[in-house]
Amino acid sequence: MAPTTETQEAYPMKGGDGLTSYSQNSTYQRGVIDAAKDVIVRAVEEKLDLTNPNINSCTSFRIADYGCSTGPNTFFGMQNVVDAVELKYHSIQQSPPEFQVFFNDHVDNDFNILFKSIPPSGQYFAAGVPGSFYQRVLPKASVHFAHCSYALHWISKVPKEIQDKTSPAWNKGKIHYTGVGKHVTKAYFVQFQKDMDIFLKSRAEELVRGGLMVLLLPGLPKGETLFSKTGAGMLHALLGASLMDLAKTGAIDEDKVDSFNLPQYHPSAEDLEMVIEMNNCFSIESFGTLDHPMRHLPFDVKRTSAQVRAIMEAIVTDHFGSEILDQLFEIYAKKLTENYLVFEKEIRKDCDMFLVLKRKSY
Amino acid sequence: MAPTTETQEAYPMKGGDGLTSYSQNSTYQRGVIDAAKDVIVRAVEEKLDLTNPNINSCTSFRIADYGCSTGPNTFFGMQNVVDAVELKYHSIQQSPPEFQVFFNDHVDNDFNILFKSIPPSGQYFAAGVPGSFYQRVLPKASVHFAHCSYALHWISKVPKEIQDKTSPAWNKGKIHYTGVGKHVTKAYFVQFQKDMDIFLKSRAEELVRGGLMVLLLPGLPKGETLFSKTGAGMLHALLGASLMDLAKTGAIDEDKVDSFNLPQYHPSAEDLEMVIEMNNCFSIESFGTLDHPMRHLPFDVKRTSAQVRAIMEAIVTDHFGSEILDQLFEIYAKKLTENYLVFEKEIRKDCDMFLVLKRKSY
Repeated sequence: MAPTTETQEAYPMKGGDGLTSYSQNSTYQRGVIDAAKDVIVRAVEEKLDLTNPNINSCTSFRIADYGCSTGPNTFFGMQNVVDAVELKYHSIQQSPPEFQVFFNDHVDNDFNILFKSIPPSGQYFAAGVPGSFYQRVLPKASVHFAHCSYALHWISKVPKEIQDKTSPAWNKGKIHYTGVGKHVTKAYFVQFQKDMDIFLKSRAEELVRGGLMVLLLPGLPKGETLFSKTGAGMLHALLGASLMDLAKTGAIDEDKVDSFNLPQYHPSAEDLEMVIEMNNCFSIESFGTLDHPMRHLPFDVKRTSAQVRAIMEAIVTDHFGSEILDQLFEIYAKKLTENYLVFEKEIRKDCDMFLVLKRKSY
Repeated sequence: MAPTTETQEAYPMKGGDGLTSYSQNSTYQRGVIDAAKDVIVRAVEEKLDLTNPNINSCTSFRIADYGCSTGPNTFFGMQNVVDAVELKYHSIQQSPPEFQVFFNDHVDNDFNILFKSIPPSGQYFAAGVPGSFYQRVLPKASVHFAHCSYALHWISKVPKEIQDKTSPAWNKGKIHYTGVGKHVTKAYFVQFQKDMDIFLKSRAEELVRGGLMVLLLPGLPKGETLFSKTGAGMLHALLGASLMDLAKTGAIDEDKVDSFNLPQYHPSAEDLEMVIEMNNCFSIESFGTLDHPMRHLPFDVKRTSAQVRAIMEAIVTDHFGSEILDQLFEIYAKKLTENYLVFEKEIRKDCDMFLVLKRKSY
């Protein structure tokens, strides 16, 4: 019933709080969280039913952040939820219950750093929950509000066929699906669809009926935008090209680059709607894209390179070893500089999506 | 309402899983856990009321281990509780609910090691809860079964007066209350009494009414036994004497030894009964001493010295620095050898106490 082992691949964000750590290089994601504050406040205000017996019969209000990483962004997100729920209780002249926040991430996440960084506001009881969110990690009907920010675009594994030399989906010389054939893109989408369905089924069991879930993730806006025409798509393509450059110098094997692929999928609005409808456990209460100041900053090579490194260091190291990191990200920064003008234009097509879902009552 | 900061002193057991780690040097505590299995099985069988609405209206059965350290002992203890509760449900032809286990310890505990070591039985959902148990760490009425093994003899801090040169309780040249004046012993007892009352009050809020709590701790049996006449008392006295020897060589300051004291109290059965009765939140359902094979092993200098080091390394390092560790424990092992015969006799007076408490219903 409660699988506490995990078979999924796990590449935690760079731990600690050093210069190259995720905690020091996740200001973009912080921008997303800040912009999402309004989404959360409105979701709680308009969609959270405090007369629901699954909520008001409980002695505590339980919130879970799935894929929390090491902070600090998870703390801002959780604070936003707590504040919004407290506000709603006060608005109906009731004292709010005690809050419990479950911080969930892979067992390889640095929970020691996370726990030491919890702000001492004393507004909630904190608990860490180890395990991939592509499985159950909490008991049935134990969560009132679920939150997942910038985590669901990490799929549980690279699709098998794109690593198979005999498959039409073999992804030779690339590390993602920017500017590749439809077989590769389809293999990625199928994996995303499967993972997302497991995610929704697992959360459907964990949430109380009528409970809310806010999802934030990078993706493609409605319409015809191609991933290859987004900033994220280009960033991944250039990381692949940097690895190929390294291979040409003999520092790594070209075969090794062929067998390396990023376990990420950036869904379109249509992709998400389809998966959620087919899953049928949640209603879509609200769906849109976030705007925030970080989106309008001029493209900055140094900042972008550091951000990508904080995110990719673990997965690159796992496949190639850590020796290549400095050289790789030097080449990478050079490529970013060369493509400055294209980025300045294309990166505006990137889109941060938010969804407010409600656990259906049947 | 939910203090997530902590002001208490925290000296986690030696982390990691190396040769000198607590996880490799806690077989005595494992003996206690094994012996306590019967206590738990009987407590669940005879004292846990599954018709209690605070228990049977919940979709999950929640267990908390307070002061869990890094394992593996906490996993054996929690498995014993889960097995006993499952057995009881099966005996009344009901399927057991899902289980959630909260592993609690100081924020400095190595939760990363703990999480990576959770056995993959899949019988329960695991969560880590950072924070001293001398405060609230979980929401109101959220726990059905509480467990605390070999942790409550760590008091929250060294009593102030025994570090005060002007006080009659000044503990010059000693590091604990073995063979000292009554002022020192009394100061320790008063601190224990305060801490234990806070512990009981906090757990009384966290446990559902009718919920059970099993406490295991080292102490003194009923009657006239003095702490100085137990193995534990002697072990602490010899550690103090070893530090004084080091001071005589000039390796550390004698003042530094004077200001070092162990934050531990080994209560007598009478001490415990008194504190629990005065607190008045719990009924004592069962109270006794455990017998287990580890108690009857011949005294072994190497094993004992490694055990004491795994427990004391953090606190000694914090006060004196880690440079002195090897030399200190060399002197210590020598002193243990010299006192072999006395130990062989006195150590039998050590006593592992168990208590089964029930949260009162008013």
